[in-house]
Amino acid sequence: MRAEDIQCLFVTPSADLIYLMGYHGHPSERPLVLAVSQDGEPTLLVSRLESFGVPTTEGVQILPYEETEDGIAILADALSQSGAAKCAISDVAWASTLLRLQSVFGDCTFAPASTILRELRMRKSPGEIELIREAGLRADRAFEQLLRLRFSGRKEREIGSELVEILRSNGLASASWGPIVASGANAASPHHHTGERVIQEGDAVVLDFGGTFEDYQADITRTVHVGNPGTEFARIYELVKEAQQAGVAAVRPGVTAESVDRVTRGVIERAGYGQYFVHRTGHGLGLEAHEEPYIVGGNSVPLEASMVFSVEPGAYLPGDFGVRIEDIVAVTSQAAERMNHATRDLQIVE
Amino acid sequence: MRAEDIQCLFVTPSADLIYLMGYHGHPSERPLVLAVSQDGEPTLLVSRLESFGVPTTEGVQILPYEETEDGIAILADALSQSGAAKCAISDVAWASTLLRLQSVFGDCTFAPASTILRELRMRKSPGEIELIREAGLRADRAFEQLLRLRFSGRKEREIGSELVEILRSNGLASASWGPIVASGANAASPHHHTGERVIQEGDAVVLDFGGTFEDYQADITRTVHVGNPGTEFARIYELVKEAQQAGVAAVRPGVTAESVDRVTRGVIERAGYGQYFVHRTGHGLGLEAHEEPYIVGGNSVPLEASMVFSVEPGAYLPGDFGVRIEDIVAVTSQAAERMNHATRDLQIVE
Repeated sequence: MRAEDIQCLFVTPSADLIYLMGYHGHPSERPLVLAVSQDGEPTLLVSRLESFGVPTTEGVQILPYEETEDGIAILADALSQSGAAKCAISDVAWASTLLRLQSVFGDCTFAPASTILRELRMRKSPGEIELIREAGLRADRAFEQLLRLRFSGRKEREIGSELVEILRSNGLASASWGPIVASGANAASPHHHTGERVIQEGDAVVLDFGGTFEDYQADITRTVHVGNPGTEFARIYELVKEAQQAGVAAVRPGVTAESVDRVTRGVIERAGYGQYFVHRTGHGLGLEAHEEPYIVGGNSVPLEASMVFSVEPGAYLPGDFGVRIEDIVAVTSQAAERMNHATRDLQIVE
Repeated sequence: MRAEDIQCLFVTPSADLIYLMGYHGHPSERPLVLAVSQDGEPTLLVSRLESFGVPTTEGVQILPYEETEDGIAILADALSQSGAAKCAISDVAWASTLLRLQSVFGDCTFAPASTILRELRMRKSPGEIELIREAGLRADRAFEQLLRLRFSGRKEREIGSELVEILRSNGLASASWGPIVASGANAASPHHHTGERVIQEGDAVVLDFGGTFEDYQADITRTVHVGNPGTEFARIYELVKEAQQAGVAAVRPGVTAESVDRVTRGVIERAGYGQYFVHRTGHGLGLEAHEEPYIVGGNSVPLEASMVFSVEPGAYLPGDFGVRIEDIVAVTSQAAERMNHATRDLQIVE
């Protein structure tokens, strides 16, 4: 905060709040704001109604308000922030909360909290990496169980529901995003909404799923084939697998995020399929399913040991099929450690 | 928008977006913004990756952007909004999106979209009321099934999981908030986080739950007792039930939201328990579980036919027990129609 000259950081229910005080809260029309100023005690503004659930956190002053009171005005009085200053607010805070803060702290300019918090959150502690590793192992196990299901003749939605159950039985709590089960031509849409299509012999099925273990995320994608694949699918599957391997092999401290994207994309481009790899190579992962660092062209942030992100190239042939293979990796002192170990060899399902 | 002199409305994934174009999208680091200006075509800025899932909506121009492009800058170019103006943004839009819009549209002042959209969204169409009615009936049915469960000797969390299954089997999709199962002294915390406590004979259990039916919410609370209750509990239960009845009876077009709160609260205050009714009387409901109008002191909005909200008084005796009874009601041309019909008589469970 000193380096960025940010006087006060406003944290609303989000991964930021979990990170800073182990408290989930939940976003609602009743403002819940942890105000951390450079000088003075951190203050948690919370509806008295929610105050029962606040964990006791040393050094955090609780500021409750009643149903008929204006919480943000009470916070402003308590902080007595004066004069022009720079403030920051959680990236995912509600716009209505930011607008209220801007009206009450009229002299402040606001920046997204990620300006400062990403510097902390994208470097994982050994304890955080251990939780992500455990989450990854549980997702791997779910994939193994998934392979035993019958796919042919069943709706994407049915496979999706069974997958949710499998994840739960492996101790992964529901992710905020549902699992993606994209079959046949649907697999050519990277963010397909799992639906009513009946999966058939001859389909490729992209399976992208995860969940949380003690608040930390898992995220894995595998593409399976119902029955034996044709030559073109098999060739593109191997290409995506090779690109994923090359991307992971390119990870080490000091290289930039975009260089990992470039290496991964290069494999697919050189084979003439660059136009079908329509998304970035990956995203950071931790308390959020998508966070810094993003593995994308234009992101010149140098990778460091303890950063965690996905490497997930794909190729999507409109009207035909799609392939994506995703593992989470952690940067080590010399290279990358995979957090997913489920086989990346093509699996044939029934 | 003309009445409020708002030149442009920015809608992000939220109930606003579902309301205006039947599209869910999902909030992420990839901005998704429907820009509706007073003049000119509505424009939907969407990552090309997500563009596959956008419903075809007449008159909405789709503006896709690539992974390495700055979506908000592209939107600004497309809108060529010039000069000082007033804009609005979805209340739940991410602060980071608002900050980007503020930096790109430097001359705009921003207001929350609810300034204009609440005027539409809080007056439900007959079709919307029908969906809320159906959601309510399904929640009622779930309550009946819930009564057949054994409570004694089981954890709140177990009852919560079974309740989620019961809701699902009645065709209600998961609410963004988990069900509240608050037993014994936990019931004295209105927003108790369903947990590990083992429910016992002699406990009151507050059950607050719902879910969505075709995007519209159900929300009901009943308080049951494990085995026969003592005199004090029975008296307070009847008091809360009477307050709830009085609140519903006070609903008619033309009275203010706060007057319904006053009538409901008055019943509990006159019996000497006012200090234990620690929250507002209710909240609007529709595409969101909490929306306008709020039934709370200070809200002088006059009720109109087609408004839908909860009437949910409670009494919470710290360290001892809590009671809450909640129905959703719709304002009719003369009075209120209850959307919940599950019995409000005290139910004894095992």
